[in-house]
Amino acid sequence: MKPDIKYLFEPRTVAIIGASHNPEKIGYKITENIVLGGYTGKVYPVNPKGGEILGLPVCKALEEINDDIDMAIIAVPGKYVFDTVKSCAKKGVKILPVISSGFSEVGNTHEEKEIVSFARDHGMRVLGPNIFGIYSAVTSLNAAFGPSNILKGGVAIVTQSGALGGAMIGKTAVENIGLSTIVSVGNKSDIDEADLLEYLMESGQTTIILMYIEGVKEGERLVEALKKATQKKPVVVIKSGRSARGAMAAASHTGSLAGADEIFDAIMRQCGVLRAENLEEAFNWCKFLAGTSLPQGENAVIITNGGGLGVLATDACEKYGVNLYDDLEILRKIFSEVTPAFGSTKNPVDLTGQATAEHYRKALKAALAQENIHAVIALYCETAVFDLEALSSVIKENHKIYKGKKPVIFSLLGGGEIEKVIDVLIDEGVPVYSDAYDCVSSLGALYSYYHHLSEEEGITPEYDIDCDEIHTIVNTVLKEKRYFLLSHEAQTVVKAAGIPIPQSFIARNLTEAVQYAGTIGYPVVMKVVSKDIIHKSDAGGVALDLENEEEVIDAYQAIMRNARRYKRNAQITGVEVTEMVQSGTETIIGARRDASFGPIVMFGLGGIYVEVLKDVSFRAYPVTHKEVLTMMEETRSYPLLLGVRGEEQKDIDDVVETILKVGAVLNMCPPISDIEINPLVVYEHGQGVKAVDVRILLKRGDING
Amino acid sequence: MKPDIKYLFEPRTVAIIGASHNPEKIGYKITENIVLGGYTGKVYPVNPKGGEILGLPVCKALEEINDDIDMAIIAVPGKYVFDTVKSCAKKGVKILPVISSGFSEVGNTHEEKEIVSFARDHGMRVLGPNIFGIYSAVTSLNAAFGPSNILKGGVAIVTQSGALGGAMIGKTAVENIGLSTIVSVGNKSDIDEADLLEYLMESGQTTIILMYIEGVKEGERLVEALKKATQKKPVVVIKSGRSARGAMAAASHTGSLAGADEIFDAIMRQCGVLRAENLEEAFNWCKFLAGTSLPQGENAVIITNGGGLGVLATDACEKYGVNLYDDLEILRKIFSEVTPAFGSTKNPVDLTGQATAEHYRKALKAALAQENIHAVIALYCETAVFDLEALSSVIKENHKIYKGKKPVIFSLLGGGEIEKVIDVLIDEGVPVYSDAYDCVSSLGALYSYYHHLSEEEGITPEYDIDCDEIHTIVNTVLKEKRYFLLSHEAQTVVKAAGIPIPQSFIARNLTEAVQYAGTIGYPVVMKVVSKDIIHKSDAGGVALDLENEEEVIDAYQAIMRNARRYKRNAQITGVEVTEMVQSGTETIIGARRDASFGPIVMFGLGGIYVEVLKDVSFRAYPVTHKEVLTMMEETRSYPLLLGVRGEEQKDIDDVVETILKVGAVLNMCPPISDIEINPLVVYEHGQGVKAVDVRILLKRGDING
Repeated sequence: MKPDIKYLFEPRTVAIIGASHNPEKIGYKITENIVLGGYTGKVYPVNPKGGEILGLPVCKALEEINDDIDMAIIAVPGKYVFDTVKSCAKKGVKILPVISSGFSEVGNTHEEKEIVSFARDHGMRVLGPNIFGIYSAVTSLNAAFGPSNILKGGVAIVTQSGALGGAMIGKTAVENIGLSTIVSVGNKSDIDEADLLEYLMESGQTTIILMYIEGVKEGERLVEALKKATQKKPVVVIKSGRSARGAMAAASHTGSLAGADEIFDAIMRQCGVLRAENLEEAFNWCKFLAGTSLPQGENAVIITNGGGLGVLATDACEKYGVNLYDDLEILRKIFSEVTPAFGSTKNPVDLTGQATAEHYRKALKAALAQENIHAVIALYCETAVFDLEALSSVIKENHKIYKGKKPVIFSLLGGGEIEKVIDVLIDEGVPVYSDAYDCVSSLGALYSYYHHLSEEEGITPEYDIDCDEIHTIVNTVLKEKRYFLLSHEAQTVVKAAGIPIPQSFIARNLTEAVQYAGTIGYPVVMKVVSKDIIHKSDAGGVALDLENEEEVIDAYQAIMRNARRYKRNAQITGVEVTEMVQSGTETIIGARRDASFGPIVMFGLGGIYVEVLKDVSFRAYPVTHKEVLTMMEETRSYPLLLGVRGEEQKDIDDVVETILKVGAVLNMCPPISDIEINPLVVYEHGQGVKAVDVRILLKRGDING
Repeated sequence: MKPDIKYLFEPRTVAIIGASHNPEKIGYKITENIVLGGYTGKVYPVNPKGGEILGLPVCKALEEINDDIDMAIIAVPGKYVFDTVKSCAKKGVKILPVISSGFSEVGNTHEEKEIVSFARDHGMRVLGPNIFGIYSAVTSLNAAFGPSNILKGGVAIVTQSGALGGAMIGKTAVENIGLSTIVSVGNKSDIDEADLLEYLMESGQTTIILMYIEGVKEGERLVEALKKATQKKPVVVIKSGRSARGAMAAASHTGSLAGADEIFDAIMRQCGVLRAENLEEAFNWCKFLAGTSLPQGENAVIITNGGGLGVLATDACEKYGVNLYDDLEILRKIFSEVTPAFGSTKNPVDLTGQATAEHYRKALKAALAQENIHAVIALYCETAVFDLEALSSVIKENHKIYKGKKPVIFSLLGGGEIEKVIDVLIDEGVPVYSDAYDCVSSLGALYSYYHHLSEEEGITPEYDIDCDEIHTIVNTVLKEKRYFLLSHEAQTVVKAAGIPIPQSFIARNLTEAVQYAGTIGYPVVMKVVSKDIIHKSDAGGVALDLENEEEVIDAYQAIMRNARRYKRNAQITGVEVTEMVQSGTETIIGARRDASFGPIVMFGLGGIYVEVLKDVSFRAYPVTHKEVLTMMEETRSYPLLLGVRGEEQKDIDDVVETILKVGAVLNMCPPISDIEINPLVVYEHGQGVKAVDVRILLKRGDING
């Protein structure tokens, strides 16, 4: 029943339901764009009035069309949409881009759901509603009411904002960025980014995918699709709403620490997505990444005719993670012959203000011929006497030769003449920037992607978890209509996952107490166990730091005596004998169900680091061992686990394992919404960890349901 | 003897020594630029060949000129420069821009110094050498070998890179940024940024100052000049070399923590300078700040026709510190009549995709008429049907009316038509940006400046410091050719400045020991004092945590016994009885002489925070109480002093005072290069601080000298 999403991009026939005779109407504009765009399939405008639009005969109703219809674009007023969808079902249409608005975006969620459900039941997929349309280069289909002059190319745009989509088409045309498609996803009632990624990652026309996202609905599917897509081509994401922190209810301590954006950001990194801060940055990256090849190594070289510009670009390289080659001897060997006197063969290679276009040609040639150099940043700073035309030729020439072999990127700074050269070069598809930072940022994005591809794919390890025990505990709690586990229940859950917790026994008499203390090893803690005594300390029912048998005996007797004195008829089950936890480095780890992304795991150093410095990091589950380690390394306080001030390294491996296990428990037990271990005490390498305090919450819905 | 720097900008007569007949030469280009630029004074080309250049008679020698010469531009080969300078002295020239290179930039520092010294002795000031020249709008003087088409306006550019300066002239022309001056400072052998600021801050032609800095020579003067200048007009600084951390030797712990850039950055903030990361950002800011008025308050409003663009701009507002007005009721009152159906009167005010230019006109008018709204960000996202011309008129109209009253800034996103409108508006001096982030960043810069001006000017408090005692100690140390103070010497220095240190006495017998312990209050620490016993602990000469008289007596006897047993003939001065310092929050404070900026102070939380998280902050001395507090607040761990996890607030005032005192000591005692108190233990509010360990270093030069 699931028709191929490819008909969205490659329909053989398109019906425009609501095609209009009035040039001011969207229904006209779309028809016009389809006709002007040179769509390769057949177009059928539909309008009860009949007649002709732009020379095309208009069918009065869908049923009248004597052809199979792959795509029906619905541009009728909202109240007629459902009926239209029903007629599409009869006709056997496959894809329904719904331009019309008036659905969930204004609160009319019910009808939207009904429409989608009906469509899906009849083998149709819905794009939108509330979209500005779709453009697909592969069939030259411009079924949108945006600009008509779309440049074909390799960039696929998926946008949640229709208005921005229209403006982006205009902007890409100005910047000479060719598009393979632009899809407006609108309310995402059915087709969403994940669906589109599945097609786009396989599409030969598309070399890079740019997505504008405002909110994520089915994050788990999105993450899966992104992970696959980034293995095939770069994905750039702009996510707005960075500052909207109120979106997620703070269900737990872990939740309250995280602005939604930190989680989004971490998960995008995990997926190998290049997150741009704004449109300008995204376009800069796309312009370069759409046409360049991947580097074969880390060594970049800056060639400049202005020392100042070289220093600025060096700063930018550090900011954007571009590694400057620094083997001075090889650099001298390569560049000494092509650098004028007073120049520098160090990196940045300074050709000086006296450099001619010929100097650039030679320097570029020398750099690009070198196996040790993997990327070149060429900067030019306007000088009084210089043959700009010649430089332009050198740039074109190099771009042509090295396009598929080595990344070369250019920045030209100066006045009107320079701007003209930039325009010409951009028109020819050469990646040239005016600002050196924009230039280096784009190369940095390429390197980010290169690093992602270089990472080995890890696997999520499987652990021997006693699922039955966990489910038994959780079911018991659910039956009692509690949404939280008691301390010992939570301890038992993590123990069932193989996470070490402090040893603990309930002794029903003195002999047992002594015996258990011996089993655990000194020092121990003892606490009275009685359903009638809630405030154990007040009752004198707690004894800490008991170092030997004698102290255990004294404490046991004292606790019993105090308890009876505190509440004469208290029913005393016994005394809990617990391991006294040795101090170590305190961490907080957790797993929770994120409203957007489903299971996520988190890590932070305990106490001040999390509470005051908000020094935490996140990943979507499933995660690999490597990803958890990267997540931990992202915190500023991570060096504390490596050992500072002469301390030994801590047992980082066991922290990673514990995080993986906590994620696995959350993942296999749907009623659990939050698990937090705070503190997880970490000992020296080889000495393991201990989960001292464990909090587990259940989803509220599951209690009532 | 110090002639007014104003002749650099307003010379009545200019001689060009090295004026050339060859159009390929710099000496020709400069002459040409002066002539074409329409310089208002008299020009005298000088060349031994005589003749005519561009219609001007050429003098064979400076002496031949029958006029007083204010400025002589020296564009002769380096080896002739000194002789030329000598002839200028005879002629009574006031200002010498030296274009020629071949001096300190290639290691020829000696001759450069000689020239400057000679010039200063003869009442002349030197600009450069190794510069590309100077442009000054006030006299229409373009005495540089850059582009000739310089647009007059309010932006003054001071650049350390000549090459960048040339390119910047071109770039400003393209961006329609008018210049009041552009000065290349080159090797800064004499005239530096501080000198130029003195003139520029008073210049009526200049509304904003933009400086490109690579390195700072006399930082103290620069700081003083910047502090004054920013009170009069905005100063934007681009400092390259952010990533060059090796510039400063790590003379002490404090020093080793600071990359030079962190210090530069902190000091620029302290001076109220707007630091741009790159040229593009700097130009964006200048374009806006040169022509706008200051806001009268914090409330900004976004008006948009695209929800997505509005969200992006909201993110940008948080990033760049622009406060969005959020009184929903007033917003509704203001905008409900001018917002189309389905729009939003919240901030961002969404006029929707259906908005016309007329909607914009009304919304802008409503916003600008409102006293509660202090700045407006107007965004437009290209839509299918819209009267761009009308919008352009609305923008122009509003700019005209509100230019001097309220900041209004525009961002227009879209294709070729939009770009054309932007170009036209920019040509008319309206601050319009293509990217919303660039737009908000510029308003953010204006708000930064507004906040700086709103700050009350504080004073650096004076403390009752026992200077004589400090000098006595330091002189003793210098005499011993030590470059560090012993622990007790350092303690005495800070005590002389009124900083609390642990109480300590040397007891020469048991009675004294008991008496001192009583004076100090228990618990105390005791240590043997003997020049013959270096390793006191090994000798059993230390006793910690002595809680009463009895323990003091026992410990005294034990120490004496152990010491005699350890070294039979040891000469024992007595026993040091010291206060046992109570635990509190550990901080690190310090003061040092920065290679560029002179005295600076620093602050950080002790231990991990400084060592692992590098969480430190800096300011140039002198500082005010308020500035020290701001410096402390800049550290991420500052909340620890406010009290976390239910703790009381710490004695922040006393930390501020201690930092001020440490700065004062460094400032009044030139031989001291570094003071570091680590830890300075801070107690609860009202309980003060205690300097537990003090390290003081002296300048190495002072020891040998």
